[in-house]
Amino acid sequence: METPLLNQIKTPEDLKRLSLDDLNILARELRQKLIHVVSRTGGHLAPNLGVVELTLALHYVFDAPRDKIVWDVGHQSYVHKLLSGRQQEFDTLRQYGGLSGFPKRSESEYDSFNTGHSSTSISAVLGMALARDLKKENFHVIAVIGDGALTGGMAFEALNHAGHLGTNIIVVLNDNEMSISENVGALSGYLSRMRTDPMYNRHKEEMENLLKKIPSIGPTVFKAIERIKDSFKYLVVPGMIFEELGFTYLGPIDGHNIMEVKTVLERAKRTKGPIMVHVVTCKGKGYEPAEKNPDRFHGIGPFNINTGEPVSASSVVSYTEIFGKTLCQLAADDERLLAITAAMPTGTGLTRFAELFPDRFFDVGIAEQHAVTLAAGLATEGFRPVVAIYSTFLQRAYDQILHDVAMQDLPVIFAVDRAGLVGEDGETHQGIYDFAYLRHIPNMVIMAPKDENELRFMLKTAQLLDKPVAIRYPRGSGIGVQISEEIKDIPVGKAEVLRDGKDIALFAVGPLVYEALAAAESLHEHGIEVAVVNCRFIKPLDVETITEYTRKTGRVITLEEHALEGGFGSAVLELLQEQGLRAHVERIGLPDRFIEQGALRVLREKFGLCRDNIVKVGLKMAATKKLVPAKMKLLSKL
Amino acid sequence: METPLLNQIKTPEDLKRLSLDDLNILARELRQKLIHVVSRTGGHLAPNLGVVELTLALHYVFDAPRDKIVWDVGHQSYVHKLLSGRQQEFDTLRQYGGLSGFPKRSESEYDSFNTGHSSTSISAVLGMALARDLKKENFHVIAVIGDGALTGGMAFEALNHAGHLGTNIIVVLNDNEMSISENVGALSGYLSRMRTDPMYNRHKEEMENLLKKIPSIGPTVFKAIERIKDSFKYLVVPGMIFEELGFTYLGPIDGHNIMEVKTVLERAKRTKGPIMVHVVTCKGKGYEPAEKNPDRFHGIGPFNINTGEPVSASSVVSYTEIFGKTLCQLAADDERLLAITAAMPTGTGLTRFAELFPDRFFDVGIAEQHAVTLAAGLATEGFRPVVAIYSTFLQRAYDQILHDVAMQDLPVIFAVDRAGLVGEDGETHQGIYDFAYLRHIPNMVIMAPKDENELRFMLKTAQLLDKPVAIRYPRGSGIGVQISEEIKDIPVGKAEVLRDGKDIALFAVGPLVYEALAAAESLHEHGIEVAVVNCRFIKPLDVETITEYTRKTGRVITLEEHALEGGFGSAVLELLQEQGLRAHVERIGLPDRFIEQGALRVLREKFGLCRDNIVKVGLKMAATKKLVPAKMKLLSKL
Repeated sequence: METPLLNQIKTPEDLKRLSLDDLNILARELRQKLIHVVSRTGGHLAPNLGVVELTLALHYVFDAPRDKIVWDVGHQSYVHKLLSGRQQEFDTLRQYGGLSGFPKRSESEYDSFNTGHSSTSISAVLGMALARDLKKENFHVIAVIGDGALTGGMAFEALNHAGHLGTNIIVVLNDNEMSISENVGALSGYLSRMRTDPMYNRHKEEMENLLKKIPSIGPTVFKAIERIKDSFKYLVVPGMIFEELGFTYLGPIDGHNIMEVKTVLERAKRTKGPIMVHVVTCKGKGYEPAEKNPDRFHGIGPFNINTGEPVSASSVVSYTEIFGKTLCQLAADDERLLAITAAMPTGTGLTRFAELFPDRFFDVGIAEQHAVTLAAGLATEGFRPVVAIYSTFLQRAYDQILHDVAMQDLPVIFAVDRAGLVGEDGETHQGIYDFAYLRHIPNMVIMAPKDENELRFMLKTAQLLDKPVAIRYPRGSGIGVQISEEIKDIPVGKAEVLRDGKDIALFAVGPLVYEALAAAESLHEHGIEVAVVNCRFIKPLDVETITEYTRKTGRVITLEEHALEGGFGSAVLELLQEQGLRAHVERIGLPDRFIEQGALRVLREKFGLCRDNIVKVGLKMAATKKLVPAKMKLLSKL
Repeated sequence: METPLLNQIKTPEDLKRLSLDDLNILARELRQKLIHVVSRTGGHLAPNLGVVELTLALHYVFDAPRDKIVWDVGHQSYVHKLLSGRQQEFDTLRQYGGLSGFPKRSESEYDSFNTGHSSTSISAVLGMALARDLKKENFHVIAVIGDGALTGGMAFEALNHAGHLGTNIIVVLNDNEMSISENVGALSGYLSRMRTDPMYNRHKEEMENLLKKIPSIGPTVFKAIERIKDSFKYLVVPGMIFEELGFTYLGPIDGHNIMEVKTVLERAKRTKGPIMVHVVTCKGKGYEPAEKNPDRFHGIGPFNINTGEPVSASSVVSYTEIFGKTLCQLAADDERLLAITAAMPTGTGLTRFAELFPDRFFDVGIAEQHAVTLAAGLATEGFRPVVAIYSTFLQRAYDQILHDVAMQDLPVIFAVDRAGLVGEDGETHQGIYDFAYLRHIPNMVIMAPKDENELRFMLKTAQLLDKPVAIRYPRGSGIGVQISEEIKDIPVGKAEVLRDGKDIALFAVGPLVYEALAAAESLHEHGIEVAVVNCRFIKPLDVETITEYTRKTGRVITLEEHALEGGFGSAVLELLQEQGLRAHVERIGLPDRFIEQGALRVLREKFGLCRDNIVKVGLKMAATKKLVPAKMKLLSKL
């Protein structure tokens, strides 16, 4: 792959010497580079293919890093990275120790704000703009936000505030008619009307100038005339929603026409106040398989460039697929079961459910808060909504889970997908806080399945419970167990003892239970007998079983793919304290820092979430003096 | 106080027999009742005075409980309670065991959804509407939401979804030009333009009917004509923002004219699809002190009806006042310090700051998520924003704290007011989860002052730290200590040993430290020597001091005004486990259930957050056999 022009671009400054023809050649080279690298590393291909010209125009018109560009969500920042001195490392994209798939302030001065979750960019650039004004400095701030991300409530909060303040900020609305799947919501319809209306693209600037020449007449009696002027403006100027909120609206423009984007951005640059530039782009642009299937190419693993097919799909079904399939089975016999997604029907495994039960499926757009309270509303009327959201994104609905679901003890089922480490997406996407942000919420039941079948059984259990329930399961392939046809429920709050042992009690949750079993086998070879308990429930914990095995062994290891602070092991410590049990406890989990990107295997080994480390901890523990188990003090509970 | 007509209203059904004159008399009686009762119980007076006619009209036109009315935030539901069978208990409003100041499903079938936090109502009623449609039932759902609450992002998420779906829901926009303080934001400006435009109130219905008669012409070439029609509609129909989002807009109407409200609600009832009814009301209507000072009368303690003055203001300044004063002092010498509030400048003690430093003060409206990410943006440019939000409302920005502030390790200071029990506002407002939702977040520093001076010192400490910091302090009066003129910083992560002792170590945070000291004195009289450690930092904990006193005593009591799950005591357990220390530990804090309303004193006694209970726990603990302190096993750390 030859990218001679791209090779010469060391900083965005280098772009400014290029002709329009050169920029178009560069756009082709960038696309080649993106397709080539992402076909090997995996990553967010379609979003980046869609913003090649937009990114070129932004860096042509503005002066980064002096001017601040904030990429909403951030997975569309690859082109930006290639243009800002990171070509050499681009091959390491999303790998352990390599370039992040998202903007990172620690990676480059050109990354002015870390992103990863949706709809934060307008707030961030408004903060930078207010800082600039206070310091009496003079630079531009630009938020690049998709039409999907614009449906997230906090984007509206920021628009509302920015329009009120009136300071200079530029919001580039990257409108590709998609969030990750097809976009939903009334705003999307509104944008679509703007895109397709033939009047919009004509003579806008001239008409607006003409309008400016009509003098303002105020204040009271002549309001009507003002209103006629506004009405006339509405006729010729699109984007009145944004105009009413205090923004100057420019667009819609063709986001793949560099000249056009450049011209409008230059106009935005010299216009005062908050500006909304509406750029229409095509997700996956320039790579046929991605254009045809932008949803699949949104985030993708390694693929064959010629066919667009995945290089090596796992033959083991994923937890996501098991969840989707099981929900369909249960829903066939229970009309109360509904499914809700926040713009991720495919990612959360709900595609089939949506086909089978279109009336019972709700895609609310990127709007996790609304998703949860909508579910609460549905539950008050006798339904059992299943809200399927990734662990990291559910963080945004923490207050709604606590305040709207749990406080009313409503039977909403949270299918917490991508829980634990997620791998290459890194820090912003690790799902390692859900136990901590859920387990102090009264009325919640929290489960984690050890494998595919247990996920099926837990879903059934949740269906039968009249309470708020969270089931958290990991990204990617299951254990590969034989799938049970029957879907049984399991007793609430009961752990499963998988192996008996007198020396150490290993309390584990999630698929790490299998690592625990493997470790127990190894320790057995060292003459150490380890009881392995699949705790299943993080809340309520199985007091009886945990107490019994702690008393029996006097030595406890807890195991979780979750932050140690406030996690499952912490809950076990609370239980032991409440029961007046003093044992030697070691907790295995993730340390108190944000966890970087990397292959799941690499990360799990690094952080000791694997057999070898459990064995190591077990050996050390066995070497320390043991409290005599039989005589172990059971303090009377106060 | 005589309310003969009101006395006859047992259910909303009884209203339907009344004449318009009677309804107006009833409105007067309701106001008398509200003023009379709230002057004794305290409560949200001004919001309720503003919705008397609106509530009467709602219950006149709709058939609750079959039709579902959801009160956003819910503090304006007193009139609704008085009309739906709760007159007898109304005197117990907000008291322990009495009527809640917010809607509660457990209290009445007329309360269809619990509220307390802002901006949830549209999501909730949309959920009910979708349930209705699935069940093929036929009732009305009505969300009553203030113009302030409409600026909360999730309200927009719900509007966007509702407009897209097109099912029947009614949103009553109760526009009083206020959130709690004066409203901010571009949307507020928009609503204001609608209110003051003389064209809005004329012939709307006729014009719309005329418009409907213009045939639609589609699909491509004649779009322009459609647009002219839209433009004409814009000229005569206000609320185009809502219309563009798929709502039929009706209004604005005078919310104190029962006849007018009734007529428009009846029209809304027979109109298909999502409806927005824009009702203009006056907060505090009918009680002069409240009309003049709606901010102060938003939520108020007992007051003298004749003067409107508080009955017994505490002579001890509140933590809120101390915070506001200290921040002003520090900000005078440090231009980096900024203050941000989400619509609560008075409640969070920032009024004086806003006067002294208007350029450095930002009221973002009811928009906690935006507030936090805005602060992150400001921090990237070298500022030290202080985000002052109540503990319970900060829950809504959990993801932004984690993802936008902590992940970038930005120096944002969270002034977490109303932390711990809040008293009469009850379940929805208790600030008892902040340790649990903050302490697993990497990079965070979390402190809780024992008294007024320590709050001052902690603010100074936060100012000097280059990290995200949360300082949590309670509602209401301080301890009453002599205020130190000097504002010292304190060493990060260092506890303060207030009393030595060999028998029990009492680790406490917040003002409960004073209860701990009192308990230690009592236990001393029983011959039990208790060391009292003011831990100050929940994160990072003082490993050295906690280890030392645990080893010395072998018996530990932790004390916090917070949920026990995942709280401060839980953090101490983690520390003891990590240090390999086995001690007899008891944790005093709040149990795993939502905590009801009641006077602070009553609640603290009930849940054992007081001297007497600490003494009780200490006595029992001292009666159990003690691990020999001097020989206590310190296990080698793995």
